[in-house]
Amino acid sequence: MNFSKTQAQTLNDILRWRRDVRHFRADPVPQPVLDRLRAAMDLAPSVGNSRPWRVLQIKDKSLRGRVQDTFETCNREAAAGYDEPARAEYVRLKLAGLREAPVHLAVFTETAPIEGRGLGRQTMPETLQFSTAMAIHTLWLVARAENIGLGWVSILDPQSILTLFDVPESWVFTGYLCLGYAESPEERPLLHRNGWQHDTSTEWLER
Amino acid sequence: MNFSKTQAQTLNDILRWRRDVRHFRADPVPQPVLDRLRAAMDLAPSVGNSRPWRVLQIKDKSLRGRVQDTFETCNREAAAGYDEPARAEYVRLKLAGLREAPVHLAVFTETAPIEGRGLGRQTMPETLQFSTAMAIHTLWLVARAENIGLGWVSILDPQSILTLFDVPESWVFTGYLCLGYAESPEERPLLHRNGWQHDTSTEWLER
Repeated sequence: MNFSKTQAQTLNDILRWRRDVRHFRADPVPQPVLDRLRAAMDLAPSVGNSRPWRVLQIKDKSLRGRVQDTFETCNREAAAGYDEPARAEYVRLKLAGLREAPVHLAVFTETAPIEGRGLGRQTMPETLQFSTAMAIHTLWLVARAENIGLGWVSILDPQSILTLFDVPESWVFTGYLCLGYAESPEERPLLHRNGWQHDTSTEWLER
Repeated sequence: MNFSKTQAQTLNDILRWRRDVRHFRADPVPQPVLDRLRAAMDLAPSVGNSRPWRVLQIKDKSLRGRVQDTFETCNREAAAGYDEPARAEYVRLKLAGLREAPVHLAVFTETAPIEGRGLGRQTMPETLQFSTAMAIHTLWLVARAENIGLGWVSILDPQSILTLFDVPESWVFTGYLCLGYAESPEERPLLHRNGWQHDTSTEWLER
């Protein structure tokens, strides 16, 4: 398979227009779209082909409410860690779309998968969680190409999430994802619009 | 920006044809292509827009030789951990293209970046390494779209790599990447061809 310049440009456009979406419309995402998003995660790389990501789709309202509670507690604590004026700036940011997003996914990593037979992770077991991060990134890009927004919520206490969902002991929490149609086109990322953090460039330093 | 079905299909094709390449031709990769690959890493998501990845392009032959030595030591130790017949199967796999690949990148994560001002990582500092994993995945996809292969080498002792490259104390080692033109089209992934690990499917379990 040889890709053309046009195809490479399409990938670049999708990467460039990916956003961490925190403002969602309440419209549901059609099931065939969700099925494609789920299937796309199978295309992510994983150490030893172990595919250690474990995904719960959270539909229960009371569970969603408890995730929101955990987020609010953690977010208040994070805000308290800043001095003014950063604290006021922080508080103004909307950092999660948990209330509005129609689709919620809690993503975990199996730390002792049979799959892969240990290959590639003896010296770096953290490659299992890296695999899950890349599966989330795969989902993120495929969602964007389907014109669906995704927001990654990391302002959560991992232990609370593990307890809340009563997952197997060998699972660790990797991230909580909100999906749905974005409320607005979001031309500039939120953290730029608000002046929280401008872009830096990747360098490759020679050795 | 609204993407078409054709554009979504292009992304799907690139994801589907990405491979962990371990067999490289020695031909150099033109500098303009490398420049595009480097720039593409700027399009990866990162917690709080912190962009914590730090990349060294390893050109020095003696440094490359020492990475190869570390790989061989770790790979022998990994092989010793399997019982027969898995050990013989493992030994037959070619798990790195370190000798042939024209471009070598050692990728680290800054665990205390000023950028991002701590946002999103108070409860989950591991999101910094997840960001680097997603930057590597971004590079991987853009490389594939440019018809360049990438192989992620994780069979390395992180402490040896940190010492070898004498990096700042706040950096952790995330992965070592080989890039170049793939020797063959690699229609089926290596771990399938060799029967090491077949594919499993991603499920979304409802809660």
